[in-house]
Amino acid sequence: MKAAVWHDIKDVRIEQIEEPVVSSSQIKVKVEWTGICGSDLHAYAHGLSKEAHPISGQKPPITLGHEFSGTIVELGEDVSGHQVGERVAIEPLIYCGECYACKRGYYNQCNQVGFVGLNRDGGFAEYVVVDENMVHVLPDNVSFEEGALVEPAAVSFYAVRESKLKAGDSVAIFGAGPIGLLTLLSAKAAGATQMIVVDLSEERLKKAKELGATTIINGSRDDIAATILQLTNGGVNVAYEAAGVQPTMTNAVASVRQGGQVMAIAVYSKPVSIDMGQIMFKAADITSTLAYRHIFPEVIDMIATGRLDVKQVITKKIQLDDLIDQGFNQLTNDVKQAKILVKPTNN
Amino acid sequence: MKAAVWHDIKDVRIEQIEEPVVSSSQIKVKVEWTGICGSDLHAYAHGLSKEAHPISGQKPPITLGHEFSGTIVELGEDVSGHQVGERVAIEPLIYCGECYACKRGYYNQCNQVGFVGLNRDGGFAEYVVVDENMVHVLPDNVSFEEGALVEPAAVSFYAVRESKLKAGDSVAIFGAGPIGLLTLLSAKAAGATQMIVVDLSEERLKKAKELGATTIINGSRDDIAATILQLTNGGVNVAYEAAGVQPTMTNAVASVRQGGQVMAIAVYSKPVSIDMGQIMFKAADITSTLAYRHIFPEVIDMIATGRLDVKQVITKKIQLDDLIDQGFNQLTNDVKQAKILVKPTNN
Repeated sequence: MKAAVWHDIKDVRIEQIEEPVVSSSQIKVKVEWTGICGSDLHAYAHGLSKEAHPISGQKPPITLGHEFSGTIVELGEDVSGHQVGERVAIEPLIYCGECYACKRGYYNQCNQVGFVGLNRDGGFAEYVVVDENMVHVLPDNVSFEEGALVEPAAVSFYAVRESKLKAGDSVAIFGAGPIGLLTLLSAKAAGATQMIVVDLSEERLKKAKELGATTIINGSRDDIAATILQLTNGGVNVAYEAAGVQPTMTNAVASVRQGGQVMAIAVYSKPVSIDMGQIMFKAADITSTLAYRHIFPEVIDMIATGRLDVKQVITKKIQLDDLIDQGFNQLTNDVKQAKILVKPTNN
Repeated sequence: MKAAVWHDIKDVRIEQIEEPVVSSSQIKVKVEWTGICGSDLHAYAHGLSKEAHPISGQKPPITLGHEFSGTIVELGEDVSGHQVGERVAIEPLIYCGECYACKRGYYNQCNQVGFVGLNRDGGFAEYVVVDENMVHVLPDNVSFEEGALVEPAAVSFYAVRESKLKAGDSVAIFGAGPIGLLTLLSAKAAGATQMIVVDLSEERLKKAKELGATTIINGSRDDIAATILQLTNGGVNVAYEAAGVQPTMTNAVASVRQGGQVMAIAVYSKPVSIDMGQIMFKAADITSTLAYRHIFPEVIDMIATGRLDVKQVITKKIQLDDLIDQGFNQLTNDVKQAKILVKPTNN
């Protein structure tokens, strides 16, 4: 079958590999759509660990892709909760089940947490085998395209749920990439009123405005925090940091009101500097989440009931053969792009 | 009357000033004991604002001292809730009562918050006038010495109450100065089991051990976080940061477990660098509190019922005439000292 296989930095090959074989507790899925995530771009440009993952046992070459939907085509002999033909979205976490966090159900905080598509063969392929408990059925009115968006939507929706946000609150969202936009949709669905989005790109801000941002602010301005404090009469309740750099964190801290919160969703490539005096005077807090847990069914329900219109973040659909040029490279160079979906099969 | 008046950096004078006069809603207190706080040392060594405080209207020269107990000697004409002769502890916050925070009762987060003893004449004097609502009666079994410790104990006790600590949890406390020691007592009173204290001074650690620390760790060791993770099978529930420097914050972040919290009590003289990756993987949070609110009665009750034996942190008692040499200078140079109390009157 055809797959996009990571061999090394800047060496992702669209090539023929053997179809995966289900073990007794696994499910084989024919992939319909797979989204490109920032972490795929990061793996492409900056690399993956060359060590075998402690749980999956796999090391590169690895098939990328962890945001995907598909159809069940085969069940392992011990699988009883699913049927061939079911339309599904895949929750791609890999966890040990034995550590302090796993025993409490906090599998996203497993001390060996990994991802299908980064630490085990993933969804940029015609077929994937996945563990039975990570397969979530899509209702008929949720398309495969939307199914491929359940994973990134879960990141944002979970971060909003874990944050202090209550209905009626104001929020600021730093970064209007796919996660920032899905955070905007999630905050809106959770009852946020003022929703201020900050990004360097006017095109992304335009998209944010279409999706419901009440105010958009260009990130090159030097009065971002002052503007937010003024708009919200003293600061937002929650600032979602979905950009992962020092200036956005600095502005996020400065933009929250007394008792407010900075919820960091982004991954930071280096430590950030925090003015603890602001945290003290505002009795604010800074926190973060990694991925999500126990939330795919709720996200699917939010999509099915029209509360999270995730398809709005799709800006392009491509074939697997075009993954590098029209996918990775375009996402890197064209800020108009938000979510690009990839069709791994020709039929 | 005699008072310790801040005129400028390193210029605090023990001098005669006029006795203060009560306004209609104020109470005049004859001071019994006043504790020396780190912020007094900071004012002495690094200065105070020369601007008039927006609420008190006062600018230096200002009488220092905000940790004090005394006896009511005179009531303003509109004061009805207190009696001459009452033994009291003073809550020294100054706030506007009108801002977003004040309207919600969060007066410690008032955007113009100040302190009696830093922004208005304070307790290193024979007499102080204070606002009626900031005067808290001491029961007979709480001594004036303990009364002078209500204020710093409130800082620690409030931080513990605002933290995620639950009975049965483990804690680490970074810094074994007076606030660190009072945090230890507060955490113990709140049901903490493992209580690990980290400090550079063996003498301070010895004191922490006497006060109930289950483990003491010298801050010069290079395996502090690893030791705490090992002792607690994965990290403490809450790390209290009462030192205010980069190494202790770094170790605090590294020492908390999944879902844990860093509660910063210290004041930081410069921004700190935070590894957000650790916050993300642990879904931990970093927060802070400024002073306290609505907590003096509870702290006094904890002292009266023997739950907070605050007098253990007193290491020395001196006369007001000796404030600079035996107070400020000794606290700066002698790490054995924790809380030094000052007697502003000779009788």
